[in-house]
Amino acid sequence: IFAHSRSTKLDQKKPCKRMVLYFHDTMFKGDNGANATAATIVNANGTGLGNSKFGKTVVFDDPITLDNNFHSTPVARAQGFYFYDMKTTYNAWFAYTLIFNSTQYKGSINIMGADMMDEPTRDLSVVGGTGDFFMARGITTFKTEEVEGADYFRVQMDVKLYECY
Amino acid sequence: IFAHSRSTKLDQKKPCKRMVLYFHDTMFKGDNGANATAATIVNANGTGLGNSKFGKTVVFDDPITLDNNFHSTPVARAQGFYFYDMKTTYNAWFAYTLIFNSTQYKGSINIMGADMMDEPTRDLSVVGGTGDFFMARGITTFKTEEVEGADYFRVQMDVKLYECY
Amino acid sequence: IFAHSRSTKLDQKKPCKRMVLYFHDTMFKGDNGANATAATIVNANGTGLGNSKFGKTVVFDDPITLDNNFHSTPVARAQGFYFYDMKTTYNAWFAYTLIFNSTQYKGSINIMGADMMDEPTRDLSVVGGTGDFFMARGITTFKTEEVEGADYFRVQMDVKLYECY
Repeated sequence: IFAHSRSTKLDQKKPCKRMVLYFHDTMFKGDNGANATAATIVNANGTGLGNSKFGKTVVFDDPITLDNNFHSTPVARAQGFYFYDMKTTYNAWFAYTLIFNSTQYKGSINIMGADMMDEPTRDLSVVGGTGDFFMARGITTFKTEEVEGADYFRVQMDVKLYECY
Repeated sequence: IFAHSRSTKLDQKKPCKRMVLYFHDTMFKGDNGANATAATIVNANGTGLGNSKFGKTVVFDDPITLDNNFHSTPVARAQGFYFYDMKTTYNAWFAYTLIFNSTQYKGSINIMGADMMDEPTRDLSVVGGTGDFFMARGITTFKTEEVEGADYFRVQMDVKLYECY
Repeated sequence: IFAHSRSTKLDQKKPCKRMVLYFHDTMFKGDNGANATAATIVNANGTGLGNSKFGKTVVFDDPITLDNNFHSTPVARAQGFYFYDMKTTYNAWFAYTLIFNSTQYKGSINIMGADMMDEPTRDLSVVGGTGDFFMARGITTFKTEEVEGADYFRVQMDVKLYECY
């Protein structure tokens, strides 16, 4: 097969798989190790460039639930990191893996992209997958559901896969 | 459809979309917060392994222009990070998002790969896209245009997409 | 061509290219700069969240060999980073580039994903490639071969590409 390049039209409204998930990020503050699932690894107050914690970096192993209740049984973990990267507003860049190990799914989904928090929704890329998500590609749409200062946030992740194998 | 694997021949000279862009990285030095768009987040002088700042890590939110003039109106932002990762020469690893929000394009392109700065050109991977670049994949070729010590560099990014949807 | 989404069945046992490689990570301890190829960039002892060095982050430029002998001539370098990201066990997240510059191969492969070290094998995503690996996608399976405390580890990487161009 020879092709100059692949130009296919995909209907963004018709993914081959879709999962709506909730991402809970509870920051470590020194005395909440039992509950915390994320920790600042460098620049808790930012680098001094701008006023929005530019360069603050966080590693997380956050629970993923099927509804927006923090106490629901997690169906997956999100393991990865983010950092703040704007001078004038809180804006972050994420790379992480969704790890499923339940009766329903085993495998992982790898995600990266910009989280422009001021936008009502923002799209990140699903760049690969393993196990039940072998070779998957798609889009994850973030929507902020709750922010409790620097202590906790909850984001709705609408995972839409357009390549399923 | 069943396939053992996908082996397609693509003509590298015929992307389905191509954009030549310029990436301007102005480092924060403590007193240039108005102009700086990148900041060292850890190991300004490296970790001590080798003599080429191994481990120095930078977060950036850099303007992207259509020509090599720093003062041209940006058509996109590049948000992400890089770190130096060789003992004997300056060499970096990048992961970032190109964010377009202009009349021409809305959406983002996600990129990662090695920047072997000693090579005249080097290729990184476009691993996904959103919006007008929905599900894109391709190659970004870096070519250094200017380096002003640790203060500023300009790289030409030749973005070639081979999967367009 | 119009498609709602791409649902293709791939045979995971039949990649279009496969390479079994060995990844040697020798940590910098301050006095072994001649041999070390990796350095902790932040949180050598972790962030204090849990007891498994959560948040410790390492940058590496590690040699890749075709057999498990550390002294074999490298066929590639692995340049990238990993960080520990669990409270209760050693578990890491990786993003890196395999750089080939030999008579056999020139080009690179970009990889990201979770390394759940307690599992006998774990799959990461090959999200792109350049040169001889132009536009590649696939899976890299990690299998730990040896761990010498925090000083050295060797991982077998079974790289299986399912999209070859």
